Amino acid sequence: MAIAEELAKKQKAISIAEFFEKNRQILGFDSVPRSLLTSVKEAVDNSLDACEESGILPDIFIKIESKSRNLLTLIVEDNGPGIVKEQIPKVFAKLLYGSRFHSMKQSRGQQGIGISAAVLYSQLTSGRPAKIVSKIDKDAPAHYFELLINTQTNEPEILKDKVIDWDRLRGTHIELEMEASYFKGRQSVSGYLKDTAIVNPHARITLIEPDNNKIIFERVTDKLPVQPKEILPHPHGIELGTLMKMLRYTESKNISDFLCESFSRIGAQTAKEICKKSGIEPDVKPKKIALDEAKRLHEAFRTVKIQAPPTDCLSPITEELIRKGLEKEHTVDFIETTTRPAGVHNGHPFQVEAGIAYGGNLSKENKVDILRFANRVPLLYQQGACAVTHAVENIKWRNYSLDQPGGGIPIGPAIILVHVASTHIPFTSESKEAIADVPEIIEEIELALKDVGRRLNLYLSRQDNLLRRREKEEIILKILPRIAKKVGEILEKPTPDITPVVAKIMGNVFIQRSVKKNGKGCEVEIKLKNHGDAVHHFSLHETIPHDIRSPSPEPKKIPLGKQNDYLWKVSLKPGEQKAIIYRLDIGIEEASKLPQIVAEGIEEEHITGAKVVNV
Amino acid sequence: MAIAEELAKKQKAISIAEFFEKNRQILGFDSVPRSLLTSVKEAVDNSLDACEESGILPDIFIKIESKSRNLLTLIVEDNGPGIVKEQIPKVFAKLLYGSRFHSMKQSRGQQGIGISAAVLYSQLTSGRPAKIVSKIDKDAPAHYFELLINTQTNEPEILKDKVIDWDRLRGTHIELEMEASYFKGRQSVSGYLKDTAIVNPHARITLIEPDNNKIIFERVTDKLPVQPKEILPHPHGIELGTLMKMLRYTESKNISDFLCESFSRIGAQTAKEICKKSGIEPDVKPKKIALDEAKRLHEAFRTVKIQAPPTDCLSPITEELIRKGLEKEHTVDFIETTTRPAGVHNGHPFQVEAGIAYGGNLSKENKVDILRFANRVPLLYQQGACAVTHAVENIKWRNYSLDQPGGGIPIGPAIILVHVASTHIPFTSESKEAIADVPEIIEEIELALKDVGRRLNLYLSRQDNLLRRREKEEIILKILPRIAKKVGEILEKPTPDITPVVAKIMGNVFIQRSVKKNGKGCEVEIKLKNHGDAVHHFSLHETIPHDIRSPSPEPKKIPLGKQNDYLWKVSLKPGEQKAIIYRLDIGIEEASKLPQIVAEGIEEEHITGAKVVNV
Repeated sequence: MAIAEELAKKQKAISIAEFFEKNRQILGFDSVPRSLLTSVKEAVDNSLDACEESGILPDIFIKIESKSRNLLTLIVEDNGPGIVKEQIPKVFAKLLYGSRFHSMKQSRGQQGIGISAAVLYSQLTSGRPAKIVSKIDKDAPAHYFELLINTQTNEPEILKDKVIDWDRLRGTHIELEMEASYFKGRQSVSGYLKDTAIVNPHARITLIEPDNNKIIFERVTDKLPVQPKEILPHPHGIELGTLMKMLRYTESKNISDFLCESFSRIGAQTAKEICKKSGIEPDVKPKKIALDEAKRLHEAFRTVKIQAPPTDCLSPITEELIRKGLEKEHTVDFIETTTRPAGVHNGHPFQVEAGIAYGGNLSKENKVDILRFANRVPLLYQQGACAVTHAVENIKWRNYSLDQPGGGIPIGPAIILVHVASTHIPFTSESKEAIADVPEIIEEIELALKDVGRRLNLYLSRQDNLLRRREKEEIILKILPRIAKKVGEILEKPTPDITPVVAKIMGNVFIQRSVKKNGKGCEVEIKLKNHGDAVHHFSLHETIPHDIRSPSPEPKKIPLGKQNDYLWKVSLKPGEQKAIIYRLDIGIEEASKLPQIVAEGIEEEHITGAKVVNV
Repeated sequence: MAIAEELAKKQKAISIAEFFEKNRQILGFDSVPRSLLTSVKEAVDNSLDACEESGILPDIFIKIESKSRNLLTLIVEDNGPGIVKEQIPKVFAKLLYGSRFHSMKQSRGQQGIGISAAVLYSQLTSGRPAKIVSKIDKDAPAHYFELLINTQTNEPEILKDKVIDWDRLRGTHIELEMEASYFKGRQSVSGYLKDTAIVNPHARITLIEPDNNKIIFERVTDKLPVQPKEILPHPHGIELGTLMKMLRYTESKNISDFLCESFSRIGAQTAKEICKKSGIEPDVKPKKIALDEAKRLHEAFRTVKIQAPPTDCLSPITEELIRKGLEKEHTVDFIETTTRPAGVHNGHPFQVEAGIAYGGNLSKENKVDILRFANRVPLLYQQGACAVTHAVENIKWRNYSLDQPGGGIPIGPAIILVHVASTHIPFTSESKEAIADVPEIIEEIELALKDVGRRLNLYLSRQDNLLRRREKEEIILKILPRIAKKVGEILEKPTPDITPVVAKIMGNVFIQRSVKKNGKGCEVEIKLKNHGDAVHHFSLHETIPHDIRSPSPEPKKIPLGKQNDYLWKVSLKPGEQKAIIYRLDIGIEEASKLPQIVAEGIEEEHITGAKVVNV
């Protein structure tokens, strides 16, 4: 007998439940603390999705009871729409079953695996069935089920099925016993719920910890987020094989209709262009399209101009919530956020939002904290596997004033937050903790990070310059007056005015007003000199209760009640000096009491001798 | 109608093929370069597994042809056992089908997903079927198939099925057209094959690149690695749920037989103990065991002493190949390797091997390179997701002389290699590129790393001391002789011997032999003084062609042909001095030509005045 025949005897189909029973780590059940968090996540994600789809303000109750060492009972209960009786066994006890897999809109669940994976893990480690209660209407009965997954067939095994009394109006209750451990801190259940509450401010979430401690994350708004719309796939990024499958199964009569009816952003005009470019008659039947024609069609998707995908299928978390997320546990000095325009990966629209916080009480010696969110769900595990982390590592942070020894995640007092929203998040595994390195997504995240990075850099270099200039000025202002005073004493003359010297040393624009007697009135001269090495444009204001005469150059006059505001636009090249001259019909005594000159449109550290007012 | 009824209409089962069609990034197809590598890996892993199982020296041929921009044809051909006709469609065009999923021994493939995933990706991106040829014996026909996966049913669609002429004796050929890109360098196909060849020295691998460049990785041994044995699960780490499933489906007559027949390392005596501990009669039928009893049984697995799992189900890569892997592209100064004893995770034995290389031409400013292997397969992607990386990051490398700013992967001129071998590698996803954070595995990797780390540290601190001492000694040896010479000249006396002074400054053990005339013969005195601040134990050898008389203390005498080796064991506390005295029946002239004293068991940098020979 050939070896192959011997080997063939072992060949066997594997049920998906059996596969995940052996590979539960893929589902996020690789250690006892993570297993609890994964179970909570799957249940809470489902509750939030179901409530939002049904226009219900979510009210989610989570209770964790300790049974014995490493054995817990997890209860999650919601006020959602409930599940019809016939669907309950499959929803909870069959892997790859769900409502959101085939739908193109942003949702948390998208695989049809999550909650049944938690049931699988529970039965695997506790030997006990999942207990489910669900009620779809106040007049409907509440159904109670005890369910196991038959792992050899991936079908539900119903141990109990009865009607019970339940005081809820409507909702779903799930109870799972499992090997797991509860702890507090980062990557914990309470940490996850806190982050979830921040980006879902319309939800009320109650957590009862094993020690009976009760934590309520109260809702802060009664407004549900705008429901993302279901859309058609966008032609950009659609695979050739997918296109062929669509052509095979479509009910459209001809190729032109097919294009308009199967894709978003293709109208009659664009369809015509695509057909022309690919050399296909618009009235050909889709099923008649051969591989070569499909390839030309696919190619035309790239070359014909097609509008970016609609974004009403997406639900960004918005700048306000990004700020809240960044400020959650720290006081910071600086926050910048950005929202990128929508992009497309594999026919799915997606959108990146990012924020950076800096300073405050953040540690200077540690790596920057990265907060990751996907479709409003905080991602707590597998940071190293995630496209967000890889994008952060790809950036040369030294260009943005953060240290990055040996490359990788930068070091410094900063927090980076990134949210990716999409009709389909390409996760690296069924545990949905890390986004895959899809080039289009990485690129968008990098652009978002560079954007906030640039603004951080600007802020830091200004802070830095200001600090350095202030230090220099402080020293100069301490020493020079003493020297000036000493010189005055020795020469027995009045202490000389050192302001122009300071301006010169500081490389500033120097402004000095001097008043001379002239006939009955007096003449005012404002000297301006740029000691710096950059051009400066700014405005000078003389806001005085007098009229001025024969000014040179001519200012703009703005009456302000009893006062007049005279405004000169000034432009000074490096080294350049100018003068403004005017006359006043007042005595020299009174003229010497004029208020300080005001400069506008120039930074305080670049000017000496005027008060800076920037609005 | 209740909302739930509306929602129920969308509930639907999802086929596993459909699931992966949408989530191909989970299978390792997230970008065009990685997609090619993943396909090559799946095909080569299968070929290596099949050849080894059949006792065939693998000869694998890989050809990559460029069709157009980002469109390639991949051909992989082996001399393996071939696949029987009936199995070909399912092996290549049905996900979750295979021979190694249900078997407990170390192999590369273990999921029944790999090669069919490559077929799925190929049809998705090229629209073309996979072309397969297989022949199981020289007299058997070669079968040619063209296959697609029906993603809605996860069943093969056979487009062509015929017998062809094929000049191979036996083997399998697969041809896939796909969107992919070929490039050279790290994470490339040739890089992967190079690493694969290193840890599989019994394989010949030929690669034809798209530019027709031919690379042959020749086999370096004709010896197949020892075939890992198939074993039963080990009781440690078995889940309660799994135990209950085993109890339900076993054919063993009673619980005692069940334990012996279902688990490795449980014999009659251990079975008896487990039954006693859990309060179960040994002759109870397994099917009668209730949940509570199963729990006690499960608990007894932890408390009763059970031997560690057998390791003949594992095939480590051995120290020699670890060294080769580390030296592959760099010259290094230092290599240390370690092999941990076998451990158990979830009933599966596993074993960790690790190595560290240091110095040579490795870069000092970059992060340490981490080379990861699982069951002899190099892991090139998802480094950040891998337990190996996390274990590296958990170590405080400063304790082992490597820099680690901000924590994480250390920086320095080093390469770390880790191999995990197991009957079941818990990968984080179906792409099999990262090992999950299973606590037992992380711990073993950490222990292995600490072991090689300690040895690196010892080496580096010795290098460091040696370097500092040499620098110091060099300076002393340059300056002191000049001073000595000058002093001699001024005093008109011979230049004084400065060796004792050097020894003193260096904190060394100082050894000096002096010879005095005594009657007809002469007296030899060896002075020893410890100038250092540590105790030194060592041996002194006088290997001379003479007999010595009245030695004090008495040495051990070892005749060496015409010579004698006199050996004194010496122990010197800090500051202590001793002397060895003996007589020789030779003239002072001849005695002054005695060979240098030899010291053994002390490091060169700690002694002055003797030749150090350490073996």
